[in-house]
Amino acid sequence: MTAIRAMFFDVFGTLVDWRTSVAREAERIVAPLGQELDWLAFADAWRSEYQPGMEEVRAGRSPFSKLDVLHRRNLERILPRFGLRDLSDDVLHELTMAWHRLDAWPDVPAALRRLRQKFLLAPVSNGNISLMVDLARRNEFPWDAILGAEVAGDYKPKPRVYLAACEAFDLKPAQCMMVAAHSNDLAAAAACGLRTGHTARPGEYGPDTGERAPTVTVDVAAKDLADLADKVGA
Amino acid sequence: MTAIRAMFFDVFGTLVDWRTSVAREAERIVAPLGQELDWLAFADAWRSEYQPGMEEVRAGRSPFSKLDVLHRRNLERILPRFGLRDLSDDVLHELTMAWHRLDAWPDVPAALRRLRQKFLLAPVSNGNISLMVDLARRNEFPWDAILGAEVAGDYKPKPRVYLAACEAFDLKPAQCMMVAAHSNDLAAAAACGLRTGHTARPGEYGPDTGERAPTVTVDVAAKDLADLADKVGA
Repeated sequence: MTAIRAMFFDVFGTLVDWRTSVAREAERIVAPLGQELDWLAFADAWRSEYQPGMEEVRAGRSPFSKLDVLHRRNLERILPRFGLRDLSDDVLHELTMAWHRLDAWPDVPAALRRLRQKFLLAPVSNGNISLMVDLARRNEFPWDAILGAEVAGDYKPKPRVYLAACEAFDLKPAQCMMVAAHSNDLAAAAACGLRTGHTARPGEYGPDTGERAPTVTVDVAAKDLADLADKVGA
Repeated sequence: MTAIRAMFFDVFGTLVDWRTSVAREAERIVAPLGQELDWLAFADAWRSEYQPGMEEVRAGRSPFSKLDVLHRRNLERILPRFGLRDLSDDVLHELTMAWHRLDAWPDVPAALRRLRQKFLLAPVSNGNISLMVDLARRNEFPWDAILGAEVAGDYKPKPRVYLAACEAFDLKPAQCMMVAAHSNDLAAAAACGLRTGHTARPGEYGPDTGERAPTVTVDVAAKDLADLADKVGA
């Protein structure tokens, strides 16, 4: 069995709680303008535009653009649904930047510090480099490099994103483990030859909504990132 | 005057002492095979092939390949000059990896830790991502991201490399300072609109060989990286 040398991480949902963080940021930015709404529903609606926006790029119908650009476009798409009109460009930008201010799930920073003793670590996320850098600063993620969609020029689950990450570290896919709370991400990584680690995030979309266990075969299934660190011997 | 948000660093010569490190590694790897030679001259000869190798890529005559690939090709070019024949592929690979085991100049790690309190930090080097990661692990360089040639798909001093780094951080060139011990690197960065910081490395190619001061106009000229940190208020 080939030794694992690097661990790659999905970020939204796997390492950070995008839902309550985006809801909190939206309330902080929009409520002072006299608008009240269901902030968690707003976060959910915004996130629900995530896959369709990337699909244009994956299908080759649109050139690659950073996730920040897609987040902004998706935001403008959902605003009318929440009765939000005439927000200034500054407010729209500040809202878009909410995705740069997401908080980690509590188990994550310490587990990453443990994993870093044994493996190279990088996010392999669809988030852009500056977004990943801001989340790393905020949450003390000890990355060796920022890999993922922007470096690959395409979005997960396209094979290029996983393979570009392995190539950046000069590693074979079998020397790399993709870690995610989403079985579809892990299935795509496994199809490229990477090892896979699942971490449960049952509260991702609210209580009892996320994956408690993988729906595909994985190398390691863990209840959180500390458990995953235990299971890979870190 | 626009505030500086990010500092970008040249690495070979500016942050690390490639010459004595490569000489040490070459001796460690080759001397046990019964070969004795002038190891510093060997390092100098290898480095002297550096610019011509990259020029093929910059001129568009060769597709981009990682610096590791160019280092290997350049190594094979100089071996006959030193009477080195019949080295195994493993030895050639191990020698090529000498560039992943370079030591920082003594002032660098502490100065980077200071600068990190105030700025985003990234290498903008011609070295590939895995090489930068290995140098960072070895010398505790606290990078926010690995930028530079491999992310840009071209080699400095092509403008694309500097501009791609600014774009990755969502910053205007005037918000970024390129730091190097080489005036030509800084001239190219300045032409792209970046701010520039020069650090003297008088011993880069041996005693009294490197630039004691910039030969072009720069925003900051420093005697080492601690002095540069003082001068940018870190």
